[in-house]
Amino acid sequence: MTFEQRLRDVIAGVTAPDTSFEESAWERLDSLTKPPRSLGKLEAIAARIATLQRTEQPSVTPMAIVLMAGDHGVTAQGVSPYPSEVTAQMVANFAAGGAAINQLARHAGARLVLVDVGVAGDVSGIDGVVHANVRPGTADFSAGPAMAREEAAEAVLVGVRVAQELAEDGVRLVGTGEMGIGNSTAAAALTAAYCAADPASVAGAGTGLDRAGVEHKARVIARALEVNGARDLDALGVLAAVGGLEIAGLAGVFIGCATRGLPVVSDGFIAGAAALAAVRLCPAVSGYLFPSHRSAEPGHDTVLAALDLTPVLDLDMRLGEGTGAALAMDIMAAACEVMSGMATFASAGVSGSGE
Amino acid sequence: MTFEQRLRDVIAGVTAPDTSFEESAWERLDSLTKPPRSLGKLEAIAARIATLQRTEQPSVTPMAIVLMAGDHGVTAQGVSPYPSEVTAQMVANFAAGGAAINQLARHAGARLVLVDVGVAGDVSGIDGVVHANVRPGTADFSAGPAMAREEAAEAVLVGVRVAQELAEDGVRLVGTGEMGIGNSTAAAALTAAYCAADPASVAGAGTGLDRAGVEHKARVIARALEVNGARDLDALGVLAAVGGLEIAGLAGVFIGCATRGLPVVSDGFIAGAAALAAVRLCPAVSGYLFPSHRSAEPGHDTVLAALDLTPVLDLDMRLGEGTGAALAMDIMAAACEVMSGMATFASAGVSGSGE
Repeated sequence: MTFEQRLRDVIAGVTAPDTSFEESAWERLDSLTKPPRSLGKLEAIAARIATLQRTEQPSVTPMAIVLMAGDHGVTAQGVSPYPSEVTAQMVANFAAGGAAINQLARHAGARLVLVDVGVAGDVSGIDGVVHANVRPGTADFSAGPAMAREEAAEAVLVGVRVAQELAEDGVRLVGTGEMGIGNSTAAAALTAAYCAADPASVAGAGTGLDRAGVEHKARVIARALEVNGARDLDALGVLAAVGGLEIAGLAGVFIGCATRGLPVVSDGFIAGAAALAAVRLCPAVSGYLFPSHRSAEPGHDTVLAALDLTPVLDLDMRLGEGTGAALAMDIMAAACEVMSGMATFASAGVSGSGE
Repeated sequence: MTFEQRLRDVIAGVTAPDTSFEESAWERLDSLTKPPRSLGKLEAIAARIATLQRTEQPSVTPMAIVLMAGDHGVTAQGVSPYPSEVTAQMVANFAAGGAAINQLARHAGARLVLVDVGVAGDVSGIDGVVHANVRPGTADFSAGPAMAREEAAEAVLVGVRVAQELAEDGVRLVGTGEMGIGNSTAAAALTAAYCAADPASVAGAGTGLDRAGVEHKARVIARALEVNGARDLDALGVLAAVGGLEIAGLAGVFIGCATRGLPVVSDGFIAGAAALAAVRLCPAVSGYLFPSHRSAEPGHDTVLAALDLTPVLDLDMRLGEGTGAALAMDIMAAACEVMSGMATFASAGVSGSGE
């Protein structure tokens, strides 16, 4: 059986969430000692998770963040101020605990799962990394497809497997993060292809391009779409043509969570593009998806609009790694603790409105 | 010595923060393994706290949230759908751990300090409450001053003392919260007086008024401003005329934190009005002030504009109690952990941009 056939079987097993518990969730929230709906988005988050979990006392712990790393051949076109070697160096930094996501995952109480799904440099000697390298970086997609269709499907299945293993470990909320020098170019190309958007409107500064750099990046993306005929491909075809291995892997994490009914959190622009790829591959995924924050990257708004989701946070962040997901997951945990721990008007002997 | 004279002495001891460490803070942040400034507001928060603490490794733990409660005579005018008794009932609920703030303070790892500065009902038998009742609720300020000038000064000094005791206990970040049926009317009246704003533009639904209720509330506020000549009073005079005891107490918490160089977090509209009162009493307070979230109450935008501060969160919350402060303090703690825990490019062996 090909990887693509296996992926189709996985996707066929995903169903939209059962929302029959939603009314009970809101009844419970409205019985708690606060003016109804006065906790705003916190209540909306708690209600959604309670509905997925079919309980008045939702909880998202234990939590995990899956950080997938991969390299990008398109860096040959000068689309990033950082060299590709940084991807492998940062995997070592993640494993040693020195990156931003290490601090934020620890703060949120989330386990960090590092996955090499396509790093070009050798990270095989680094402990604490799931070694699932499909190929050592993509090809330069401005000259042809980033990877073969089967490689894209294989990378997606890596993510499905990681998510399903976390579900088996009892994890109740999964976050996503990525590392890959050049991957904001891939995310912008995917967004342009999936949303029929102008490359200039979705290309951003990434790790720190100046205006001329961003314009060059947009031209590279336009050429990539043209060379690959990307706008006419199906969801998997687009991912293979102008995606990335870590992006495909994360698309699989979203799908894998959906197969187990687990809420799953996107991070910024790049993980958001992976979420969009997942939803295009498997529309029912959107019922399990929670966007974390609005990235400073301009293409992220296009992604969020296509997903029809509003993020929890807007902190002008553009780092990736799952940093926005970690902060949002902390707030989602707090939302569940509010719903599960508060007294009702009746139990606390507090008068209601109009009494 | 009168309370007002004692308060003037306290205020005279407040100085603006020493910002000479700010450049070093940003140099450190820019040396960490991430694209410069890519953590957006998180870095701005860390830099501000590092500057206040004069260290490259800032930390805000241990943290405390001061929740002050008081009642409002203006409830006689039908400005809230909840009866005044709810204030004392909620104090009991806070002490028992059943309210939203109990869950969110625990989630953030913040100690909750309950203070009765002006509850009308008897809460003297409730353990775990700082009993500092200045008077059992304010007078109806639509017919005359809410309280005497000396009472307002006394309530402010309660907050100063609570904040200074927390500083002596080693607390490094203080949040604010309030409970008091009717206090969004007081906050709106204060905002209208301090900012020369139209009552109709700052009166909101509070705990759940309908449109007619909000219009009535705005008329009550307009009458209160007129009856008290509030627009022509000094900062303490406004607070006495149309304020509240818990609002005056929280103004004292902001001032007390400033006397000890402690960062202090405002909550929503009502604690924000208290922050504004504190800054009008003592402008140097603003250097220590961190707004937490943008409340759904319309008057809060006026308060934030007057304070010239941008909040961290916008979650459509309007509960008070310190709930927004707790969530923001959790993010501020995370920001400090990022700055204190991350590796530098040099220490992690990661190539920089353009290398």
